[in-house]
Amino acid sequence: MNASVAPILPPAARAGQALCDVDTPSLALDLAAFERNLRVMQDWAERLGVALRPHAKAHKCPEVALRQLALGARGICCQKVSEALPFVAAGVRDIHISNEVVGPVKLALLGELARQADISVCVDHPDNLEALAQAMERAGARVTVLVEVDVGQGRCGVTDPQVVLALALARRADAAAGLRFGGLQAYHGSVQHMRTQADRAAVCAEVARAAAAHADALRAAGLACPTITGSGTGSAQFDAASGVFTELQAGSYPFMDADYGDNEWAETLRFEPSLYVLSTVMSTPAAGRVVLDAGLKSSTAECGPPRVAGRAGLTYLAANDEHGVARVEPGAPAPALGKMVRLVPSHVDPTFNLHDSLVVFRDDVVVDLWPIAARGLSR
Amino acid sequence: MNASVAPILPPAARAGQALCDVDTPSLALDLAAFERNLRVMQDWAERLGVALRPHAKAHKCPEVALRQLALGARGICCQKVSEALPFVAAGVRDIHISNEVVGPVKLALLGELARQADISVCVDHPDNLEALAQAMERAGARVTVLVEVDVGQGRCGVTDPQVVLALALARRADAAAGLRFGGLQAYHGSVQHMRTQADRAAVCAEVARAAAAHADALRAAGLACPTITGSGTGSAQFDAASGVFTELQAGSYPFMDADYGDNEWAETLRFEPSLYVLSTVMSTPAAGRVVLDAGLKSSTAECGPPRVAGRAGLTYLAANDEHGVARVEPGAPAPALGKMVRLVPSHVDPTFNLHDSLVVFRDDVVVDLWPIAARGLSR
Repeated sequence: MNASVAPILPPAARAGQALCDVDTPSLALDLAAFERNLRVMQDWAERLGVALRPHAKAHKCPEVALRQLALGARGICCQKVSEALPFVAAGVRDIHISNEVVGPVKLALLGELARQADISVCVDHPDNLEALAQAMERAGARVTVLVEVDVGQGRCGVTDPQVVLALALARRADAAAGLRFGGLQAYHGSVQHMRTQADRAAVCAEVARAAAAHADALRAAGLACPTITGSGTGSAQFDAASGVFTELQAGSYPFMDADYGDNEWAETLRFEPSLYVLSTVMSTPAAGRVVLDAGLKSSTAECGPPRVAGRAGLTYLAANDEHGVARVEPGAPAPALGKMVRLVPSHVDPTFNLHDSLVVFRDDVVVDLWPIAARGLSR
Repeated sequence: MNASVAPILPPAARAGQALCDVDTPSLALDLAAFERNLRVMQDWAERLGVALRPHAKAHKCPEVALRQLALGARGICCQKVSEALPFVAAGVRDIHISNEVVGPVKLALLGELARQADISVCVDHPDNLEALAQAMERAGARVTVLVEVDVGQGRCGVTDPQVVLALALARRADAAAGLRFGGLQAYHGSVQHMRTQADRAAVCAEVARAAAAHADALRAAGLACPTITGSGTGSAQFDAASGVFTELQAGSYPFMDADYGDNEWAETLRFEPSLYVLSTVMSTPAAGRVVLDAGLKSSTAECGPPRVAGRAGLTYLAANDEHGVARVEPGAPAPALGKMVRLVPSHVDPTFNLHDSLVVFRDDVVVDLWPIAARGLSR
């Protein structure tokens, strides 16, 4: 057995190919819908006078980020230091790591990145801030520090109502040679998928109040607070209008997903699905049941199974590793063995993280394959 | 901005390094526990006189498969054609694709594989069998065909009680130049995680009865049925003893996971956790709460969150994309900022599929990094 003669996997798609001939499972992007979504959010941010800094953890794809920047986004967010690498390699110069960076390997890498791009990072602990200051000194680099405030999510971030810790962190960041105090991160994750507009509006009002209280206290102590960053696709409508946030970190809006699709949306700000998992009917074992070749290794299931797009009467019931069991309602046409079925992922971010490339199509013809270059980069 | 100067991500670990210094999140294997698990299942299969054909979809790692084969496994299973490629490249010569292979790209690849290794594949539809026969003719190759029987799972497989379709498929496979009829696949997935021994025993008895009925009917029609393959980690105890199965396809037993850990196990056949997601405390924002740097992009959450190993009073509550929020019980020691916490994944198979390499350790010292070469290969 000679290892060198093992067959090579052909690419899933080639430009010019009909979408229905793409090998499956594959992740695919409807370019026209994607471009409309980009424009809707950019216009909204500009109209409200707030910067858009889209989150790249949603897609991990430099080609996506470059199009957001070309339309006017201020920069991007990444969630991990390693995730930022392919974006810097692709020429992105302004990246906010919207997270605490803890550990010597990560801090050294952050120092390298900060010599090549404008990098900001969150802190919520004095020990981490000291380690960050030392790492930047060692690297001969400088990063902007945003103090993360817990505005109700109960995850990371400082919480003392007297803003004592936030103020101490901001002062220390302001004084360190390799750091620059930039302001606050005030992100609330769980508001994003509250279903009604009214519920999201109410929580966002609390978030804005808490963020403003912290910023006011820092300013009263003589610390400029030029950046207040946060928000997401589900709360952008309210956060942009709050007058408190200077930046929106929304990530999913270019793609949408089934979970966001279940939200109630305003007429003024709504997005359309542009992302699909292409799958093939691999078995038609019984009346009322077909089995698809895309399971939870192609579309993650922590927010439930994906939804079938464009086929009434076909419901994806259960995701196994590499199978999707779907029910055909009585009277509905069953797709034949070998037919392609398009699925809307239930959760965009971890689904992108399963795929190495994105099949980009327009009018059901493949136009490109974009590398999902940051896939798997969680360090 | 020059793309060539972007920093390079260092490897997560190096041989000789202390495990506590590995960069996180990383997937790590306790080699001693892994080796004990391999031996337990191999001994069990040999004692019961049934072949072990471990499923590689669980780990996607050729180094794991080579060790299973060295201990006496007959071959391996893969769930997709593309998944088999790195195993063939690593020298594995006997692979059962435990699934239907539908579509021209996949069938052509299967033909290439079948020229280099002994490959078997499942069928449950006459059209797929014809396409398979034609593809093998075109490739000048031959594959073994196993008719998949639905023994109660309600996924793929033929189901008619009179065995009419199974017999027709077997006869056609037997007659085609590029095919060889090999027997049956009778896999029942949902029995694997039934919690009690009694429930699994009862369903496994039904499975064995259904598989035997099909095999008897085929033999009565003059078709030898040398292989009856199926089973999994949760049902291997019963399937091996049934006298019906000739092969066990168990995949998770070398690693275990939290979901399997919740099963009731026999004294005679039990496995220990060997697989961990290494994570770091990245925030200690409030009394009773720490935040870990491993979320659902490092350990999948469709079977619930991972479990904390070896730290009483620390509970992983919720997995976000890149965060794990954990509760510290009152009175329990909270791990400090920067400390490593080991997590037992809730579901092995899709968790391996998130990682590109496996940090292998013995006595808390890193001994190797194994490529998870089939990660992402779902076509």
